[in-house]
Amino acid sequence: MKERDLVARAKELFSDRIGDDAAVVGDQVLTTDMLVEDVDFTREISIRFIARKSLAVNLSDLAAMGAQPAVALVALALPPWAVAQADEMLTAYAEMARDFGIEIVGGDFSRAEKLTISVTAIGNVITRPLLRSGAKNGDRVYLSRPIGGSAAGLQLLNVEGSSYAEKEFIKSAVRRQIDPEPEVALGMALAKLPQITACIDLSDGLSTDLHNLCQASHCGAEIEKQRIPVFADLQTHARSLKLDVRDLVLNGGEEYALLFTSSMREAELSSAVGRPVYVIGRITNGGVTIDGEPLLPTGFDHFE
Amino acid sequence: MKERDLVARAKELFSDRIGDDAAVVGDQVLTTDMLVEDVDFTREISIRFIARKSLAVNLSDLAAMGAQPAVALVALALPPWAVAQADEMLTAYAEMARDFGIEIVGGDFSRAEKLTISVTAIGNVITRPLLRSGAKNGDRVYLSRPIGGSAAGLQLLNVEGSSYAEKEFIKSAVRRQIDPEPEVALGMALAKLPQITACIDLSDGLSTDLHNLCQASHCGAEIEKQRIPVFADLQTHARSLKLDVRDLVLNGGEEYALLFTSSMREAELSSAVGRPVYVIGRITNGGVTIDGEPLLPTGFDHFE
Repeated sequence: MKERDLVARAKELFSDRIGDDAAVVGDQVLTTDMLVEDVDFTREISIRFIARKSLAVNLSDLAAMGAQPAVALVALALPPWAVAQADEMLTAYAEMARDFGIEIVGGDFSRAEKLTISVTAIGNVITRPLLRSGAKNGDRVYLSRPIGGSAAGLQLLNVEGSSYAEKEFIKSAVRRQIDPEPEVALGMALAKLPQITACIDLSDGLSTDLHNLCQASHCGAEIEKQRIPVFADLQTHARSLKLDVRDLVLNGGEEYALLFTSSMREAELSSAVGRPVYVIGRITNGGVTIDGEPLLPTGFDHFE
Repeated sequence: MKERDLVARAKELFSDRIGDDAAVVGDQVLTTDMLVEDVDFTREISIRFIARKSLAVNLSDLAAMGAQPAVALVALALPPWAVAQADEMLTAYAEMARDFGIEIVGGDFSRAEKLTISVTAIGNVITRPLLRSGAKNGDRVYLSRPIGGSAAGLQLLNVEGSSYAEKEFIKSAVRRQIDPEPEVALGMALAKLPQITACIDLSDGLSTDLHNLCQASHCGAEIEKQRIPVFADLQTHARSLKLDVRDLVLNGGEEYALLFTSSMREAELSSAVGRPVYVIGRITNGGVTIDGEPLLPTGFDHFE
């Protein structure tokens, strides 16, 4: 059974609200994500970044709904090594909560052999929630920022770069991987624009998340590979660092960029949100393709 | 560092709302609890009961606040053996959600070596939230039901009873342990009575949770041991089954009975809520005592 099948079964048994980045309940959106040591991270990462990422992935879900983050709850199951660093961990949450203007109102502490973190975040709807399901034939498909850096960073975490330029690239890619930046401000700006028809955050990889958006919207998409913005210097260092750019960009997870659709043109939309956003293709009535070939959802699945 | 110290530090760093059974935010109360295999349960328990308990402990937190359960989110980190039983698990959640009139609006699926469950529940405040902090000198201290059964059940999980009567007792005690009943209806009834001054649910044991309530209320309490209602037939079978009744009743965790305080008399309060509730002592300005001796908080702590 795949993650996707479990979600479908949960939707069937529990609620139609399941299946988007977060559940819309009244004027709130609610989301929860669990991170497990040695599945989603290793303890070699500084505990500060483990904590930040566990909150960031939830804030990214709120961003994808165009919601304003309000409160969070943090449940921690701690092995002894993490108990010893609990204060640093809590401080990291407090710091990030301040940066994003949220309040951590509750949580739970438990023991475990592996550090396990479950964060629940609640946001307030701005004007309307951005759903995965509104994309229309002919809409442009947008990415909020260059991608591929996070997956490159995951590969490069333990590589020593040989040149100074490579070391600098490795540092920025690893940073993208261990300290992802949720697109909270952009999500809220998009929610205010009625021309934005659908939105999702890239957690499992462009190919998989584009399929998720298209499935929810009952549509297809044509992507042009050359239009996908690529993480700075990834192309430059790909060969010497043995990085497969195409795979990183199409299937690399944990980007937390937003993928969204709109009839608006790139210049007009960039101007409306006050920052660059990138058209990478079009919504169609067909399948999901890249440069005319089928694009398969080969991103991350916890159970494959 | 103890669980209590971690909670105090979280309160200091995050929010004054931390420290009660659930956080009050506007007209909602929010709570989260994480259960970890081999810490909070073993896989010998049927997965249906593991699922039910993980939701019950959260509903009990809402009950202690006197709130009406509304929605929940369920995050599951599943080892292969649990993936194979995922459908049974989801069905158990759906069944319990229906019984308590809540909607499971979201969640997360991940992998782990040990089954790890994090449930977040949100309730609506009825009239007012019941806090731990309102107990007044002279108030009566109440228990919602007889206790000691859950901790007895934990000890008896793998014992074969010798007589039929013992087997029946073991069955009911084990049931109390593996399928606890949150006092949702009672909590809501108490919230409507202005004379209820404080409330907490018994998750860590009477001694510890009474200390928690007294600490929040800046008071003490005198408990009379003989007034504590004891789980049916626990006394009868204690000797033959090698159960320490005093320890089970005072320090046994996972009861999920409510402990609350009020100026009302037992007959009057029982009549007001339409069911028996039990006075076990009085709130004082002194320490926490039982039959005149100090009662130490020796219940469950995840980090001791």
